[in-house]
Amino acid sequence: MKVAVVMGSISDMPVMQQAIDVLKEFGIETEVDIVSAHRTPEKLVDFSSKAHEKGVAVIIAGAGGAAHLPGMVASMSPLPVIGVPVKSSNSIDGWDSVLSILQMPGGVPVATVALNGAKNAGLLAVQILGSQNKELLTKMIAYKNGLKEAVLKAANDLKFTE
Amino acid sequence: MKVAVVMGSISDMPVMQQAIDVLKEFGIETEVDIVSAHRTPEKLVDFSSKAHEKGVAVIIAGAGGAAHLPGMVASMSPLPVIGVPVKSSNSIDGWDSVLSILQMPGGVPVATVALNGAKNAGLLAVQILGSQNKELLTKMIAYKNGLKEAVLKAANDLKFTE
Amino acid sequence: MKVAVVMGSISDMPVMQQAIDVLKEFGIETEVDIVSAHRTPEKLVDFSSKAHEKGVAVIIAGAGGAAHLPGMVASMSPLPVIGVPVKSSNSIDGWDSVLSILQMPGGVPVATVALNGAKNAGLLAVQILGSQNKELLTKMIAYKNGLKEAVLKAANDLKFTE
Amino acid sequence: MKVAVVMGSISDMPVMQQAIDVLKEFGIETEVDIVSAHRTPEKLVDFSSKAHEKGVAVIIAGAGGAAHLPGMVASMSPLPVIGVPVKSSNSIDGWDSVLSILQMPGGVPVATVALNGAKNAGLLAVQILGSQNKELLTKMIAYKNGLKEAVLKAANDLKFTE
Amino acid sequence: MKVAVVMGSISDMPVMQQAIDVLKEFGIETEVDIVSAHRTPEKLVDFSSKAHEKGVAVIIAGAGGAAHLPGMVASMSPLPVIGVPVKSSNSIDGWDSVLSILQMPGGVPVATVALNGAKNAGLLAVQILGSQNKELLTKMIAYKNGLKEAVLKAANDLKFTE
Amino acid sequence: MKVAVVMGSISDMPVMQQAIDVLKEFGIETEVDIVSAHRTPEKLVDFSSKAHEKGVAVIIAGAGGAAHLPGMVASMSPLPVIGVPVKSSNSIDGWDSVLSILQMPGGVPVATVALNGAKNAGLLAVQILGSQNKELLTKMIAYKNGLKEAVLKAANDLKFTE
Amino acid sequence: MKVAVVMGSISDMPVMQQAIDVLKEFGIETEVDIVSAHRTPEKLVDFSSKAHEKGVAVIIAGAGGAAHLPGMVASMSPLPVIGVPVKSSNSIDGWDSVLSILQMPGGVPVATVALNGAKNAGLLAVQILGSQNKELLTKMIAYKNGLKEAVLKAANDLKFTE
Amino acid sequence: MKVAVVMGSISDMPVMQQAIDVLKEFGIETEVDIVSAHRTPEKLVDFSSKAHEKGVAVIIAGAGGAAHLPGMVASMSPLPVIGVPVKSSNSIDGWDSVLSILQMPGGVPVATVALNGAKNAGLLAVQILGSQNKELLTKMIAYKNGLKEAVLKAANDLKFTE
Repeated sequence: MKVAVVMGSISDMPVMQQAIDVLKEFGIETEVDIVSAHRTPEKLVDFSSKAHEKGVAVIIAGAGGAAHLPGMVASMSPLPVIGVPVKSSNSIDGWDSVLSILQMPGGVPVATVALNGAKNAGLLAVQILGSQNKELLTKMIAYKNGLKEAVLKAANDLKFTE
Repeated sequence: MKVAVVMGSISDMPVMQQAIDVLKEFGIETEVDIVSAHRTPEKLVDFSSKAHEKGVAVIIAGAGGAAHLPGMVASMSPLPVIGVPVKSSNSIDGWDSVLSILQMPGGVPVATVALNGAKNAGLLAVQILGSQNKELLTKMIAYKNGLKEAVLKAANDLKFTE
Repeated sequence: MKVAVVMGSISDMPVMQQAIDVLKEFGIETEVDIVSAHRTPEKLVDFSSKAHEKGVAVIIAGAGGAAHLPGMVASMSPLPVIGVPVKSSNSIDGWDSVLSILQMPGGVPVATVALNGAKNAGLLAVQILGSQNKELLTKMIAYKNGLKEAVLKAANDLKFTE
Repeated sequence: MKVAVVMGSISDMPVMQQAIDVLKEFGIETEVDIVSAHRTPEKLVDFSSKAHEKGVAVIIAGAGGAAHLPGMVASMSPLPVIGVPVKSSNSIDGWDSVLSILQMPGGVPVATVALNGAKNAGLLAVQILGSQNKELLTKMIAYKNGLKEAVLKAANDLKFTE
Repeated sequence: MKVAVVMGSISDMPVMQQAIDVLKEFGIETEVDIVSAHRTPEKLVDFSSKAHEKGVAVIIAGAGGAAHLPGMVASMSPLPVIGVPVKSSNSIDGWDSVLSILQMPGGVPVATVALNGAKNAGLLAVQILGSQNKELLTKMIAYKNGLKEAVLKAANDLKFTE
Repeated sequence: MKVAVVMGSISDMPVMQQAIDVLKEFGIETEVDIVSAHRTPEKLVDFSSKAHEKGVAVIIAGAGGAAHLPGMVASMSPLPVIGVPVKSSNSIDGWDSVLSILQMPGGVPVATVALNGAKNAGLLAVQILGSQNKELLTKMIAYKNGLKEAVLKAANDLKFTE
Repeated sequence: MKVAVVMGSISDMPVMQQAIDVLKEFGIETEVDIVSAHRTPEKLVDFSSKAHEKGVAVIIAGAGGAAHLPGMVASMSPLPVIGVPVKSSNSIDGWDSVLSILQMPGGVPVATVALNGAKNAGLLAVQILGSQNKELLTKMIAYKNGLKEAVLKAANDLKFTE
Repeated sequence: MKVAVVMGSISDMPVMQQAIDVLKEFGIETEVDIVSAHRTPEKLVDFSSKAHEKGVAVIIAGAGGAAHLPGMVASMSPLPVIGVPVKSSNSIDGWDSVLSILQMPGGVPVATVALNGAKNAGLLAVQILGSQNKELLTKMIAYKNGLKEAVLKAANDLKFTE
């Protein structure tokens, strides 16, 4: 029950690190690698077609610009693939990576999260694993309660009438 | 191991039917309901906070315009939530529903699929269930092979040199 | 005759402060709080459904990204709700918050102001209260005259022919 | 306690009629007129600067393309002005009217509703009047309950598991 | 044969200065003023309806955000009005000012130039005056030759083969 | 004192006819031709560089898609050039022609009107000629009064209170 | 010296036929096939990595939505790849296919043509072959002359002064 | 067998240098010049119509804003023209240059690369030359292998499981 986190380029790492951190926080075994759809297509084929045979249950793939990695992984894997649009340097405000990942044709879904939303990609992977795992589900409920507590505390600190 | 398919309005049904059809094709038990974030907020709270206690493993939520249903369900459920942006009649070309569903804040992921991509939402739900269920995973591999066969057949029918 | 100013996150405060300042300037009692649609949904329900019973006449709600707070408050309150789209850090140039707040479905209006337009949200709240309050209306007329004087003075300082 | 509904052109009437219908449903006295910012600027000045002296409490203004009517009315009236972006024939998908109405400078708010959202403009006017009028507030609560009932009924008709 | 240069706010001056500089370069008498459509509507009416009686032949109007100044001036003046969309601080990437100025309804043209294109507004004013003035036309031909010379010189400096 | 109306393709004629009609209405001599920047570049050079020597005072140029005609004419003529973005069949919603015409570099202005706004191009040409021609200026004032009368009549027909 | 025309789905054929027609008109041997990046990834690898060994000199690839075919072919072939963004049915106005094909990362170019611009893709392939083939270059010059003649004829038919 | 690299302005040089560097790396003779469509139209005509007679086989043209250079060169040359949209200072986020270059009408293709994608323009020129030149094709295969090696090395450095 592993999660694989792959990215198109080392320059995506600062964004993708947030997914890795979340998975660590939930104690999920995580495999991190660079797989470039455009520069290492053979590795792409190899990784995508075999991940489900190697104990990977969910794949998180991040890429920028004309981001083909998440969709190409999804085309060759029966596993749920989470796509993270990364706002890279020459991107047109991120629209290119968002649309290249989101607008997949019928038959090949990619679970897309927000621009640079790697943290949510990690949480979604946990939710996917937790959908059939009581323990993780319970941790996720606790996590959400933690979010709530933090906001309620910030609210208490701020709240005023004048 | 049920999937819940909810939508903001009966007018979303023609799009959302494609998710229901896919789930049926894969033999997944499916619960269909209308839950309007804006018109039935109490039902929204009730549904979202209890779905995981009633045997639901994955939630698919579709909505159009300023589409708040998928994000609000995600805020109250520990389950993976798949969001389907629906291109409704007064939408600004679909951009409103896409962005309202996709751009969720850190902590509350929604697995977004393409505009009107309910078919892919159904498939993603199957993949999520299949990530820890050998039988479904095998069916998904067969499904993808079916897609491939259909394209290869169309290619054979078309292919020519002149 | 109070105005409630709520925001999705403490990070929205620098923008929302401008609304609070305007309300203070007009001598309107103001209640400030953090209510996160996605992280404190129960507080959202509680706040929205009861504000009109607690002396609140107008609600100003600000949020960024897939901004659901203004619309969700509007779904549960009979009061006029003013929405402030906040340009948050991972926003796609603000389009996400603008469209998530503006494009509400029929039946659930949100009075949307410009991106980061919290100052105008404060003024709109004053106008709403003033629409049935002679004193506030007179203050608003004076305020607009003040704007005019300031521009006329700037014009006098600048004006030249060459 | 009247509402004025003005529009830039007779071609906006099919959209604006929805605001008029809502106001009638709530028993609000309504004044309907055409005021073109670009073709009848004197009437614009006259209407905007005097409306508050003639018993008007809220102004609804609809226009398409480079829609200046709502903002110009707001510049000359101390009353709350609700702007309805109308998707006119040569509009660039409605973006022009949305942005021309929404993005008002500090000091001159326009309460903007969705593209073609005249129904919501009517409801917002009722909420503004109701914010200080118990009877209207009660009617608005009943209206929202009506929306809820309609959705719950549609949900009951649709709901199924398979 | 004067050109009037007006702007909505003193903050537009750094951009609009480029138009003033061009007009000076061509020896055109220029009148500069601040006229805010939203804050000084009476001055707007006065200026727009009388400019043609005061020796003004062309009007250049610059504004940002929901930029109504150029269109409102055009609605009240029979003179050619050149609109300069200014990218102001809270603009949505300039789209709001561009569309608010460009998309005028039939009957009320505004000659729109590029975002922040005040220099071109100045040149266009010269061309308008030059269209019936041999001397200015000759100066404009010389100006264009100057542009050409500058580029040819830069080309000569750069040109290389390797 | 002639106006030249040129367009990139015969398919632009239905839109451009509106400019021709306006010019006829005002009694302006008009020359109509097809000049394709991309298919007849020599004619483009010939037309653009000589128009001012042949009695043309203003040029109106319409084109769709990557619309280079108005800008290229402007690069070679000292006359004011009015650009009409035409929404052609394979256009991306008209954005391509709008931006290709509007966003001219410093030194080469094109007076851009709204998408498909050929009527306004004709009126702008009249205003340019009228800026130094008392008779045309008077006709333009009368034209604007005609617009006003038409709107006031429509308003009188519509106006009601209920 | 063959051109390969591939497309992601049989539904792209009506658009892609225009490329095939152009190639036929110029007497270029053409191979037509369906290769789906998402549904037949093995065929994609096979086709892309071997095309240059089978006499193909240029590849034209068309696809819609999150269009990965042109970029993936380019990643595995040393040949020039021309990408045709197809406006498919669930596309967001074509922006998705345009950006997915155009915004390729450094190292992997795709020669992108206009939305649905398959005719130009065919012509570009001819130009590429003609860049080192005198006969084709001569044909291309003749083709361009033909375009010019057609426009000049249409101009002659239309041209008038009134 | 030369490549010509032209740009609209010296300010495009930092971007265009990347194309020149790639061509040098592949040992292709390269001619660099400034040709401004809007400021030196005669040079544009001269360059475009004669390049193919002077040993140029491929033209790379870069420009920003309403970028007409690539399209105008393409209109007058039978050679393949590669267009590089440059994100210039007053650009609207680059959309203007992208659309002005990409959306060419049928008959006049421009091979468009990504925003600021001059490196890819250089590589595409090499591929075009290599499509009929065994030696260059082999170098291109080696280049792509180099990309792959670099990514595989980065992947090896990064790869970890935790």
